Amino acid sequence: MRFGMRFAKGHGTANDFVILPDVEDRLALTPELVTALCDRRRGIGGDGVLRVVPDGDGWFMDYWNADGTVAEMCGNGARVYARYLVDTGLATIGEIPLTTRAGDAVAVVTPESVAVSLGIPRVYGASTATVDGRRFTGTAVDCGNPHLVCPVNDLSTLESLDLTGPPTVDDAFFPDGVNVEFAVFDGQSAVMRVHERGVGETMSCGTGAVAVAAVGLGAGTGTVTVDVPGGRLEVTVDGGTCWLSGPAVIVAHGELAIGNPSATDR
Amino acid sequence: MRFGMRFAKGHGTANDFVILPDVEDRLALTPELVTALCDRRRGIGGDGVLRVVPDGDGWFMDYWNADGTVAEMCGNGARVYARYLVDTGLATIGEIPLTTRAGDAVAVVTPESVAVSLGIPRVYGASTATVDGRRFTGTAVDCGNPHLVCPVNDLSTLESLDLTGPPTVDDAFFPDGVNVEFAVFDGQSAVMRVHERGVGETMSCGTGAVAVAAVGLGAGTGTVTVDVPGGRLEVTVDGGTCWLSGPAVIVAHGELAIGNPSATDR
Repeated sequence: MRFGMRFAKGHGTANDFVILPDVEDRLALTPELVTALCDRRRGIGGDGVLRVVPDGDGWFMDYWNADGTVAEMCGNGARVYARYLVDTGLATIGEIPLTTRAGDAVAVVTPESVAVSLGIPRVYGASTATVDGRRFTGTAVDCGNPHLVCPVNDLSTLESLDLTGPPTVDDAFFPDGVNVEFAVFDGQSAVMRVHERGVGETMSCGTGAVAVAAVGLGAGTGTVTVDVPGGRLEVTVDGGTCWLSGPAVIVAHGELAIGNPSATDR
Repeated sequence: MRFGMRFAKGHGTANDFVILPDVEDRLALTPELVTALCDRRRGIGGDGVLRVVPDGDGWFMDYWNADGTVAEMCGNGARVYARYLVDTGLATIGEIPLTTRAGDAVAVVTPESVAVSLGIPRVYGASTATVDGRRFTGTAVDCGNPHLVCPVNDLSTLESLDLTGPPTVDDAFFPDGVNVEFAVFDGQSAVMRVHERGVGETMSCGTGAVAVAAVGLGAGTGTVTVDVPGGRLEVTVDGGTCWLSGPAVIVAHGELAIGNPSATDR
């Protein structure tokens, strides 16, 4: 880590991020720096790092996962990124153009929530997931990353699922792994839990909420409220756009301590 | 949480703390504030909170656990507290008097390490702990809190233990629960893992290292190097004092964000 490096910490439905302001685009992230920052005990702690860089009239979201890998897009990360821009005066309430490794996006910031445009989810098949010896039939949804949405009958069944290990899935159907959502549907709302590939059960997953909404809407359009363990998200699919909306907050601003022996100037 | 409240984050062998400077003694901690600060996703994140308050010629360590309960003493917490005092110029390298709810202590700060004086550990019996159907015989040690130190033959056995759940112990012998250490001893050094009561396996436990050293030293005096998952500690027992020593670092300084909707002025 770097002496005096400024950072912020924020979260969207308990999906949390270390934010690095870099308006002069001077900071080259490395896997080592990202994993050190995201270390929850020796560092700041977060599910990922968001480097804040101007890009033309908008902002480039340089997003890295906590494990030091680069990711194309992160719905909750984009929402927290946009909140940071407004909280620090880098942007104003309203529409903010974002560029990501997955293409252009738009964030819409209000005092209560942040919405971000994501790709339209694509339903592409059926498969199964097995947990605790119980087999669930689900729908495969491509949200840029692969999901399997398994409807569950009731909340007590949903709560009882042991997601400490990964659900057993069809590895031939999902050669790159899959995020598995278990969801109780009730009209235009759903309650979900998610096991993210390579991570485990998480408090929230933006694309997971989108996948659940896509299944809830069938091939149609509309709005679905999706309760994740970390809070409430709202997904709206209209003709050409999918919006992920919900709370996003900046928790703290700070800088790395000079006394930190693991902090070496790069 | 409180708008603009200043904090620091630090750790000792990956036992991490939110530090609240309060030299004017104006801040009344509450369980709600402590749990909000220690929340690793919605707050700053830490195993506990250290409020920094002057007390006569020294400093009072107002220590709270992440669950919002008050604790009498925390060895790694005291070491991080003393490092904070020196890093911020509130104290200078050398001996620093501390008061805790468990009585007076002394911290000795050098550039590389911080040592803190703790009570002399008291060996008081034998009992057993069972993990994965394997039964280990151990020594009960009182370090202000109860410990059961179970020697293990070799490192591969130590690494193979499943400590995701609590070891089965004699509840009649340990009516208030017990911290269980599994340790491989090799002369004046030991490698340990610990399951802390009410918490689970942790990266480090200061009093656990002291308990392991007490068993390693028999009834005698001397120094034992104790490797915990989060780093290396050193425990020295002489006639009247027990010293816990090791690295302690401040990672970052910051303040809570105004934009945080859970931040309400108290």
